[in-house]
Amino acid sequence: MTTVTGHTEAIPASRVIGTKVYNTAGESIGSIEDVMLDKTSNGIMFAVIGFGGFLGIGERYHAIPWSTLDYDKSRGGYVVPFSTEQLKAAPSYSVNELTEDDGQSVRDASFQHYRVEPYWH
Amino acid sequence: MTTVTGHTEAIPASRVIGTKVYNTAGESIGSIEDVMLDKTSNGIMFAVIGFGGFLGIGERYHAIPWSTLDYDKSRGGYVVPFSTEQLKAAPSYSVNELTEDDGQSVRDASFQHYRVEPYWH
Repeated sequence: MTTVTGHTEAIPASRVIGTKVYNTAGESIGSIEDVMLDKTSNGIMFAVIGFGGFLGIGERYHAIPWSTLDYDKSRGGYVVPFSTEQLKAAPSYSVNELTEDDGQSVRDASFQHYRVEPYWH
Repeated sequence: MTTVTGHTEAIPASRVIGTKVYNTAGESIGSIEDVMLDKTSNGIMFAVIGFGGFLGIGERYHAIPWSTLDYDKSRGGYVVPFSTEQLKAAPSYSVNELTEDDGQSVRDASFQHYRVEPYWH
């Protein structure tokens, strides 16, 4: 799963969590609240983005394929190549719903919505 | 990278960090300090285990293949199938060394030391 040249790019999960996320228009769309890992494989299932800003009752989360996050040094955050419309139309979940069905439904819906090639084939 | 039946097992990175790790003899060998993710793929490179107990100057860390961590409910922690000798002989790193060479040398040395089949082939 490395690139053709075998290059990797190590980033500790603790440093990812809390990082701001922007869309390509430069608008802040939230922060990475968590990264969902698959215990049965070496796969990163998706990044969990909170749009509310704070953890709280009723807050909804979005699942975004890990590979779509592009770090922008000048902004100090990740940029995702999605339009505001795409993001607004994306399925959202409560914190408990994220791990229902061991995250599989959430992961599949996310990759389908953002038209990202599944990594688990 | 899912199992034959397509099963996944979702676990948020934030819940993994801080979990205690035991060897098969039931001895506490440290805690998971972080999980190293590969930004260029969907791969989890390794879990970072701290043996010192607290983050501090001079603390050394070990890299353990993600797939070797087995959650034990009764202990409330992970169990790794390694002997105390294997763990003592494992390469250790400073926090900065863990991400040198984008984590590739550390990852490769870890999989080799614990004789775990590389996931990136």
